[in-house]
Amino acid sequence: MNKQSIPLDICPFCSPDNQKIAFASSPSFLALYNIAPILPGHSLIIPRMHIKSLRSLSNEQISELFLFARQITDVLLAYYKAGAFDWSIQDNEAAGQTIPHLHLHIIVRHPADLNAPGDWYPLIDNQSKNGSSDRPALDAIEYSNVVENLSRVYKEMK
Amino acid sequence: MNKQSIPLDICPFCSPDNQKIAFASSPSFLALYNIAPILPGHSLIIPRMHIKSLRSLSNEQISELFLFARQITDVLLAYYKAGAFDWSIQDNEAAGQTIPHLHLHIIVRHPADLNAPGDWYPLIDNQSKNGSSDRPALDAIEYSNVVENLSRVYKEMK
Repeated sequence: MNKQSIPLDICPFCSPDNQKIAFASSPSFLALYNIAPILPGHSLIIPRMHIKSLRSLSNEQISELFLFARQITDVLLAYYKAGAFDWSIQDNEAAGQTIPHLHLHIIVRHPADLNAPGDWYPLIDNQSKNGSSDRPALDAIEYSNVVENLSRVYKEMK
Repeated sequence: MNKQSIPLDICPFCSPDNQKIAFASSPSFLALYNIAPILPGHSLIIPRMHIKSLRSLSNEQISELFLFARQITDVLLAYYKAGAFDWSIQDNEAAGQTIPHLHLHIIVRHPADLNAPGDWYPLIDNQSKNGSSDRPALDAIEYSNVVENLSRVYKEMK
């Protein structure tokens, strides 16, 4: 499928299921665990609405997004016993955005978890190009266990 | 130099010069044009204070940082006639942070500006490892012209 032609009704981030599988939420945003994480803890923050660009957010939504992302990062670092993370946004096709629905990647990092610290980036790129088939996707039980655990830690730390 | 041992007094982002060469500022943050940009427009948002991690910012500072970054992104996209950008933060050494002073990369993007959309990331990684020697640094006149122009556009759009 041409990456620029994903219609709204099949946007994977607009699936009603996402509301159910989010491990945390704020009024306008959801925190989702990646079904095929690059590294353990790899999560996404997305707006509930089908908004493509960060530039379409109001000032209030920008603040809400990044305060929520910091909160979620704290949860992920606590749960995965880590002290480092990458945040990354690709905004618009020319920047590598393949799903036209804003998403902030939060990548939890440990020392020497990859050959070079930046090696996660091509992995995201590959995922976008090839789907998740080059990385093991979690099965339904594993996935729901992670969601349940992260949801619990989020509530404890809130 | 061991990347983990940069003392405060030689932190490149704490140089008093940075206050002078910033093309825009907010109460707690500065916008700097990269001396050896990966692509035209490549800029950084840094806190004025020597703060290593995003997690050390207050909620007010988080909001200020990202609202300022959005404003600067608007300026850069207008000036470089672009519609796409990457935002990236590496937080702590294990995530690839080499200068222990928080910095958000803003990479202005145009269609097909790199072989693959994600090719900027290894370039940042190389810069961190090898200094800027593998990319042409702007000379003083070029640099001050860019700063002057971006500063003017920032004031016009404010």
